[in-house]
Parts: sequence; structure tokens; C-alpha cells
Amino acid sequence: MTVLKESDSGITSIAVLASGRGSNFDALCRADTGQGRIALLLTDVPDAPVLDIAAEYGVEALYLSPGKYRTRFSIDAEQVWVDTLNERGIGLVCLAGLMRILKGPLLESFEGRILNIHPSLLPSFPGLRSQAQALDYGVRISGCTVHYVDRGTDTGPVLIQNAIDVLDTDDADSLSARILEQEHLTYPEAVRLHCGGRLRINGRHVEILSQNESTTITGDIRGGCRCTGS
Amino acid sequence: MTVLKESDSGITSIAVLASGRGSNFDALCRADTGQGRIALLLTDVPDAPVLDIAAEYGVEALYLSPGKYRTRFSIDAEQVWVDTLNERGIGLVCLAGLMRILKGPLLESFEGRILNIHPSLLPSFPGLRSQAQALDYGVRISGCTVHYVDRGTDTGPVLIQNAIDVLDTDDADSLSARILEQEHLTYPEAVRLHCGGRLRINGRHVEILSQNESTTITGDIRGGCRCTGS
Repeated sequence: MTVLKESDSGITSIAVLASGRGSNFDALCRADTGQGRIALLLTDVPDAPVLDIAAEYGVEALYLSPGKYRTRFSIDAEQVWVDTLNERGIGLVCLAGLMRILKGPLLESFEGRILNIHPSLLPSFPGLRSQAQALDYGVRISGCTVHYVDRGTDTGPVLIQNAIDVLDTDDADSLSARILEQEHLTYPEAVRLHCGGRLRINGRHVEILSQNESTTITGDIRGGCRCTGS
Repeated sequence: MTVLKESDSGITSIAVLASGRGSNFDALCRADTGQGRIALLLTDVPDAPVLDIAAEYGVEALYLSPGKYRTRFSIDAEQVWVDTLNERGIGLVCLAGLMRILKGPLLESFEGRILNIHPSLLPSFPGLRSQAQALDYGVRISGCTVHYVDRGTDTGPVLIQNAIDVLDTDDADSLSARILEQEHLTYPEAVRLHCGGRLRINGRHVEILSQNESTTITGDIRGGCRCTGS
């Protein structure tokens, strides 16, 4: 029975990994993330607009090479990302539009401590172009999902989901914009819960504890997340 | 350009096809189905409890043999179902817990005029045990879907969806019960829209017209449903 906290202060240092404009990074910087502090931005795109947002907030921001592949990291490069995170005492990794699949050292080193946000109600519409997939299918309801990252594509245990109505008049842009509004509320809430020790994972199930429970329950806690199963 | 109505009165006669307890049949009998009238219950189970509900409401109810297979109809048997529907001037078929997949004459004869209700937000969790599938996955949001029936399993164009929260305390029974409450509201609403000529199908997309639009637009209308694409 160990209680792992990033520091005695109970604060979890967060790194955001992003490839693009960084609107979710911006939302995380602006929001109340409770006991989580946005400490680092890493990007695999040298001129990603998200770098400018990090500068605005005074958050350390680094471009790191992802290696030679287009949709994943090379093993050597990924290890550099892991080392960079560890050197800074990062306790939680938030993917926010990172256009690469994690398969190697990042997953191993930060198992149960990597979050992703996805613009659909998973398991519907995983992968790319989720909003267009939803429109092509003709659903009436879509939304967003924050989940822990595992080896699959958008398959990890779900923390939170929020739903929105799809309108007859929607195109991919308008639907994406409305889902994005929800993402900007949902991701900070998930980070608050994780960093506040309010989540207990049992297999695929993520239980949200009351604030009372979170102060009384002990267990195998990693980065604020109580893992009671595998 | 033809306007197909089941009769000059604008009333669509509805047959419900069910295998079990018939709670959605009951909901359809109790609810305001607008220009739709529940005229017939067909079941493939000789002692299905739904037969008693039909008797309560004074709705004609028939057991018809499904043939020798367990999960689908034999072709000959399915043709008898079609003949029975046609003899009674049925304009809309509502599946309500029919435990068989339609592949043959029913689909051909009633294309675009067969509805089904499914206890999940499709395309998540098609097939059997949807509520248990949702719990196994660990979603936070589920719901129900009314869709037109095509040759796939729960793959047809979506009319309406309604969402509910999945609770940490839910088991399959409690989740099923809360989704069922939504089903009992959602199915009659879908039937009202279809029978009121308020739906326009274009490929996979079902557009809901305002009552004003539904009285001014003409097109290829089948059983109250405007089909503008295939």
C-alpha cells in the first residue's frame, strides 16, 4: 500500500503533448485544474501554433524530434521524450491533438498516467475525422471522451464523456466547434479528478470517488489515480 | 412525384413484431402515435407475454411460425408474415424486441418502412446484450436509438437517439431499466414523426422536418417517409 504523489505538496506536474493549434492546451492553461499544474508543452511539430500559446502562459515548451516515422515515434526518439518528462518530474501526460500513436517507452513509463481527449462518444468513431464519421453515420448525439491511453487507438478506459446534439444543419466544422466547446470543459474536469486522487481504475472501469472518499481510501495510487485492478 | 399514404384519411396502420414481454409494444399502445394506429401484433413465440398485452388493448395478435431457424426466418415463413401484413394494409412495421434478423421478403416488401429500437447509442454496442456491453466498456453515457432497418445488424439510418448517464453503481438491470424508460418515450416520438410525414431520408441521413415543411414538401414519400436518396 503506497501513496504516490508527485511531491509532498500534493501537486501533480502535467505535460501536454500536442501537434497543432493547441486549443485544448489553452483550455487546460486557463482552467482550474485543481492539484494539477501545467508545467511543460512538448510538440513533434517545429512550428506548431501551440508553441505560441505556451509562450503566452509562460509554460516551458520544447520541440522534440519524433524520429523518422509519420504516425508514430521511433523508439530512440520516444525515449528522449520520456527522459525529458522524467527530468522535470512530470506526473501526468495529457495528449491534446498529438498526431502520433504511442506504442513504446512513453506508454510503459507512464502507464495509467496518460490522458487523451477524443471528439466522439467512444467507442463510436475512433481514429481520425471523428466528427465527419459521426455526420456520415447520421447520429443524433455525439460528444467527447477523456480516456486513459492504452496500446489501441482510442480504446483505453473512459474517465468522462459529455454529449451534444447533432443538428440536421451541421457540417464537420460546426459540429467540431460545438464538440470543442465541450472538450474545453471536459478535459480540465478530468485532470482535476485525476490529480485530486478522485479516480479508481478497476480494469476498464474508472470510478469517480466523492471528495470524502478520496481522502479516506488508500490503495495503489499512481499519480493520483487509484488502481485496484489491471 | 407521388404521395403515398396508407389511406385517404392519412392514417398509417402499424404492426408491431415482438418476441418477449412487449414493454415497447405497451408503450406504443399507450402513447400518442399521431397519425399512426397500432393495428396488429405479430410474434414468433407462441406463449410470448406480449400476447396478453395485445389482448388488454384489443389489438389483433397472431403467432406466426418463423420457420426452422433460431435467429432468422425461413424464406417461406417470412413470406407468410409479409402476406399477413399486406392483407391488413400495414404501412409501418415496428420491431420491438423481435429476436430475429430480417434478411428476406420483409425487408424487400417494407423497405424504408421498418423501424427498430436499440438500447444503445448506435453505432456503439450493436447486437445482443447492449447494456452489458456498455458496462463492460465502461462508458459514461449510453441511451437508445430508433433506426430504420436494413440488412445489417442495427446498422440502418438513425431517426432519433436519447442519451442517459451511466452510473458507477449501475449493473445491467439498473442500466437496462433506465434506458427502457427512454425507449418508451423515444419509440412513440419516432413513430409520430414517421407517420406524420416529418422525416426525409437521404442516404444514411434522416432529416426531421418542421410541421410546416412536412405539409408543403412533396417528393417520393413512402408510408409517410420522404426518401430523397437511396
